[in-house]
Amino acid sequence: MLFEIPALDKTATAAIQQRIDLKTKPAGALGVLEMLALQLALIQNSEAHLSLNKPVLLIFAGDHGINAHGVSIAPSAVTQQMVLNFLAGGAAANCFSRSNGIELAVVDAGILSALPDAAGLIQQSLGCGTADFSQGPAMTLAQVEAGLALGRHIARQQILAGCDLLLLGEMGIANTSSAAALLAAATDLPVETCVGRGTGISDAQFALKLNLIKQALQRPYAKDPLSVLAEFGGFELVQLCGAILGAASLQKPVLIDGFIVSVAALLACQLAPNCRDYLIFAHQGAEAGHKAVLQQLNATALLDLGLRLGEGTGAALAVPLVRAAISFYNDMASFADAGVTQVVEAGVAT
Amino acid sequence: MLFEIPALDKTATAAIQQRIDLKTKPAGALGVLEMLALQLALIQNSEAHLSLNKPVLLIFAGDHGINAHGVSIAPSAVTQQMVLNFLAGGAAANCFSRSNGIELAVVDAGILSALPDAAGLIQQSLGCGTADFSQGPAMTLAQVEAGLALGRHIARQQILAGCDLLLLGEMGIANTSSAAALLAAATDLPVETCVGRGTGISDAQFALKLNLIKQALQRPYAKDPLSVLAEFGGFELVQLCGAILGAASLQKPVLIDGFIVSVAALLACQLAPNCRDYLIFAHQGAEAGHKAVLQQLNATALLDLGLRLGEGTGAALAVPLVRAAISFYNDMASFADAGVTQVVEAGVAT
Repeated sequence: MLFEIPALDKTATAAIQQRIDLKTKPAGALGVLEMLALQLALIQNSEAHLSLNKPVLLIFAGDHGINAHGVSIAPSAVTQQMVLNFLAGGAAANCFSRSNGIELAVVDAGILSALPDAAGLIQQSLGCGTADFSQGPAMTLAQVEAGLALGRHIARQQILAGCDLLLLGEMGIANTSSAAALLAAATDLPVETCVGRGTGISDAQFALKLNLIKQALQRPYAKDPLSVLAEFGGFELVQLCGAILGAASLQKPVLIDGFIVSVAALLACQLAPNCRDYLIFAHQGAEAGHKAVLQQLNATALLDLGLRLGEGTGAALAVPLVRAAISFYNDMASFADAGVTQVVEAGVAT
Repeated sequence: MLFEIPALDKTATAAIQQRIDLKTKPAGALGVLEMLALQLALIQNSEAHLSLNKPVLLIFAGDHGINAHGVSIAPSAVTQQMVLNFLAGGAAANCFSRSNGIELAVVDAGILSALPDAAGLIQQSLGCGTADFSQGPAMTLAQVEAGLALGRHIARQQILAGCDLLLLGEMGIANTSSAAALLAAATDLPVETCVGRGTGISDAQFALKLNLIKQALQRPYAKDPLSVLAEFGGFELVQLCGAILGAASLQKPVLIDGFIVSVAALLACQLAPNCRDYLIFAHQGAEAGHKAVLQQLNATALLDLGLRLGEGTGAALAVPLVRAAISFYNDMASFADAGVTQVVEAGVAT
């Protein structure tokens, strides 16, 4: 049941495309916003009127055993500090969520030290950080399954409470190491393509990170997505994967943030290929493997702002583009409405 | 006086940059939004608090004699039809302005047939379309000077009425021909780099457009920006250039839309180099010469959405990014505020 995602009904594609093409603009002149409007119209199964009432950003947080080697610029304590920053409203993700009318909640998927209950904090920890994946599996298969179910549950709960666009972000010191290993293990990509500098490590740290990941990938492990998640995953990555499955199960669009969330999306699509049609990719980040994972997903991101922060910042910044796509689809005049001469490629039609 | 633009005072650069660097994120992790916040903080001359209260989009419309040759997919009548569409609220620029909280007004800078007075229409026509620039000058030097003054005046009027971010857009069938010729004449760029397919002309139309522009550039003309504008300009292009000078004269930021407005910006910067510091480039359009003109201006655009519509659509879509830059600059917690360990490149600081 976890992996049963309804296929997106595409029978209205031609009618929706015609509606877009009759707007007062040359065909295709709104670029990727036209593709976005088509996708949203298919998802909302409505040829008449699209809506966006309640975008919600869930930031999944987790810690990573691999950080014992110093593969990040920051100590693991920063994960919890940043969770507190989110809860106090002081992080970039909070600012962008406020400026774009987005609700925000934080999920403790498995940080080192649990926090007391707080408004905006959802406690569903899988443990106090993963094991060091350079030495052995990051978690058990049972933890993977529990994490997928928890992520799915929280996404569905948000949607049942009115969320009609789920934004996904993450916080977890060293999680680019986990995401890079997952990407290499889940695809045929060379590990060098997958590993980057995260938030800005030195040459020596980068060499260490690359070697630890290479070494980890050399041990024998089962290649199915659940086993790959157990070997190299993070608690936030597993729950993100579950959240994507949960939103897609209710046929709601999901706005994918940067590299980490894109890798979770790749695994969700391997587990349930129907997921793909519900995903919108917000941001092409600066991380090396991000372009590669988007290519694997046949995806083009809406924004390229040189962000390398995560948290869902890219997703939050893309929400106005979703609103703009909805706005032109709903409200822009047709050639007939406006009395504008319709022109077609290389000639005048009417 | 027209070309007297106050230099941007950059003495606070280091203090502003430090404020950005002490926010709870790795240095530079917000990419181009950090550069945007720095620019806005310098322009507003405020280290404490940035604001954006009233963004206004002015769409300058004009017709072009060159279109008698059929260098566009559309007949010139479409310019006026689209002006009516703007006034009725039905165009893409209206939709994006509404969805992003932007006021919109249309300037008749010189369309073929003048319109009756209407709410939201500013009448300051320089004539019923330019002369065909493939045969001789598009307009007189007196028209250039009048157009610069009119554009300057309307921009200053908007700013004195509270506008604190001026968005510039355009509507004018065949104006990519004019902009391409201006770009080639105002720079050392080969004409092939400057000429593109506008909203989607055929191979034959493209060959014709290129030849007409090449031919026009071969006649003798003075190379100063005013003469170049008279030879190849459009009435909307000249007034856009004036509007940029007007906003910069009052030290307000200007959000530049696509290829056409970027060429107007290049000429404004040639006339008054101090302009450059007040310009924000919204969108990298699909038009061939757009990348070239941005390089000439040493500019990177915020968005790349494959738009090829003009109207100010790219500028309108970039306003939420300006709001986001202001939001993080004003409201994001510092490391000290939030009790987050500050990390610096390749190591832990505090």
